[in-house]
Amino acid sequence: MYNFSAGPAVLPEEVLKEAAEEMLEYKSTGMSVMEMSHRSQAFAEIIGEAEQTLRNLMSIPDNYKVLFLQGGASQQFAMVPMNLMKNRVADHINTGQWAKKAIAEGKLFGRVNVIATSEDKTFSYIPEMKGLKVSEDADYVYICHNNTIYGTKFNELPQTDGKTLVADMSSDILSEPVDVRQYGLIFAGAQKNIGPAGVVVVIIREDLIRDEVLPGTPTMLKYKIHADNKSLYNTPPAYGIYICGKVFKWVENMGGLTAMQRRNEEKAALLYDYLDGSTLFKGTVVKKDRSLMNVPFVIGSAELEAKFVKEAKAAGLENLKGHRTVGGMRASIYNAMPVEGVKALVEFMRKFEEENPRA
Amino acid sequence: MYNFSAGPAVLPEEVLKEAAEEMLEYKSTGMSVMEMSHRSQAFAEIIGEAEQTLRNLMSIPDNYKVLFLQGGASQQFAMVPMNLMKNRVADHINTGQWAKKAIAEGKLFGRVNVIATSEDKTFSYIPEMKGLKVSEDADYVYICHNNTIYGTKFNELPQTDGKTLVADMSSDILSEPVDVRQYGLIFAGAQKNIGPAGVVVVIIREDLIRDEVLPGTPTMLKYKIHADNKSLYNTPPAYGIYICGKVFKWVENMGGLTAMQRRNEEKAALLYDYLDGSTLFKGTVVKKDRSLMNVPFVIGSAELEAKFVKEAKAAGLENLKGHRTVGGMRASIYNAMPVEGVKALVEFMRKFEEENPRA
Repeated sequence: MYNFSAGPAVLPEEVLKEAAEEMLEYKSTGMSVMEMSHRSQAFAEIIGEAEQTLRNLMSIPDNYKVLFLQGGASQQFAMVPMNLMKNRVADHINTGQWAKKAIAEGKLFGRVNVIATSEDKTFSYIPEMKGLKVSEDADYVYICHNNTIYGTKFNELPQTDGKTLVADMSSDILSEPVDVRQYGLIFAGAQKNIGPAGVVVVIIREDLIRDEVLPGTPTMLKYKIHADNKSLYNTPPAYGIYICGKVFKWVENMGGLTAMQRRNEEKAALLYDYLDGSTLFKGTVVKKDRSLMNVPFVIGSAELEAKFVKEAKAAGLENLKGHRTVGGMRASIYNAMPVEGVKALVEFMRKFEEENPRA
Repeated sequence: MYNFSAGPAVLPEEVLKEAAEEMLEYKSTGMSVMEMSHRSQAFAEIIGEAEQTLRNLMSIPDNYKVLFLQGGASQQFAMVPMNLMKNRVADHINTGQWAKKAIAEGKLFGRVNVIATSEDKTFSYIPEMKGLKVSEDADYVYICHNNTIYGTKFNELPQTDGKTLVADMSSDILSEPVDVRQYGLIFAGAQKNIGPAGVVVVIIREDLIRDEVLPGTPTMLKYKIHADNKSLYNTPPAYGIYICGKVFKWVENMGGLTAMQRRNEEKAALLYDYLDGSTLFKGTVVKKDRSLMNVPFVIGSAELEAKFVKEAKAAGLENLKGHRTVGGMRASIYNAMPVEGVKALVEFMRKFEEENPRA
């Protein structure tokens, strides 16, 4: 069975096997990680090692903090303005549903300028980054780096004229190397490439961690509280962090982000090459902005699409139904999806195309 | 080995065994619960059954919603005022560290009246509830129902003159039957009696769920958003909720809350009776306010206390060191602690007392 879910999504089998083996007793602690005090030495090692592995994988500079928080990306939509909006102004690029949610949330706290958008063509492309006009008083420029629903990805970053760049990388973190220094703040909900839902990772440059936040910011929504307490201000989502640490180790064992990128490009090419040659299926995204992680495609007949999803499921290819705003199908092929899964999908599509030739 | 940690704490072994067995594949879904879409039928059943079992256990009336949220009790300290403070006034009872944190957070949003406190005697008792003066303009009266650090519990509720009663039940929910109708809102971090850290359960009367919240309240901090979306506004901490559901079932199989209360009273009596007869050890809480869940005790010699904690650990009795603000020792004997664990502790204390008689 191959699980093409957009998130929560497939996890490496090795990670799940280890977790199952350690469920009743972690190492020789006599207890499950779920039963451990978050102030214990054993948990300090778990969270410390998770952070260090992530730092190594992404080459995170020393002047950035790594935080393991709760509330998902949706809570970051509020934490970012509450902590970073000194002037109460932010520039956003609108590339889809999650970008829009961040815009709407930002408006609760200040002025949001949408400085570029691809809404005119159902977010099937990334707006032109050259000649982008950043507002003089903007506290930051915000992007959603990979758009899970629409299958687009920023392959070129906006020039921010020295303004802080904030990126939601929920659906493509760890899929390829990134230069963290280009960003002031990166966040990512865990449930795609990192681990189970209920953990959100924040990578934030130290100068952005301030005590001066917007009035009425809850203590739990201050980056400074979590940074000062090394993500242990209150009880963290400890078991989730433990699984994240295992996934980080798995990525490291796979060869790190350069190897992941090679593997992800190989997987994506299998699928995109097939789509480009197909007369039945059609990718929905302009080529240069295609995501390595989320591949939406359509047939153009609701009936045939429903048939495809149903027969694919029967063949062990799960969760291929597209998001309702795009329709059609979507294959999410995150880090943990093996090449064999994509090959099986392409094979199935080929067979389906033969059996259902375009009229 | 017995784990007396104050939280995260011991979980039923049956629950962990089932979780280990289902880690790679939940029922015949072909995937782990961690890999499941939160919009899938399988997860809908998991969260639906968790809620229904909790409703049955606590006899939660139909006009209360049950929410599974993130951020722990600490985030509730902000959500309660942001959602409930119409007049920007709250009455609080100060019974310890977590009560104080809620007071401090409440002050970010309005006026907080501390209408009773036991701070004068290191929170070793619950203030007198009779003749309590509730403020006329208070939006609610707030209590911390069981005080994990100090080992006290409200055995009598404050008379609130019709005001909404809000209770933090993080450390004693499910330990005995409660009359939910006495409360407007109950919340509880999962990591003591419910499941793993990273889930907080909120039980809220429907009339308190309003669209009108304080200005600047993040979307994720509105009860209404979560109630309208049945805790699926964004990706919930799905694996944690799955474990909570298993713990609820375990409590049900144990005979429900009346049976849990009997068992908890039996366990607590073993320990308190021994403490009351000991010449070496001494409980720190006045008898009538003693918690069934957290039992702090002292020797009065830092040296002997350190020796006790060390030797207990060597004997397989873990996490007995008291909180730094009380000193001494603390045994947390939550629902999942078997009677045998408390017997082993008392046996060990008896032996220790014989070997270390008071000079």
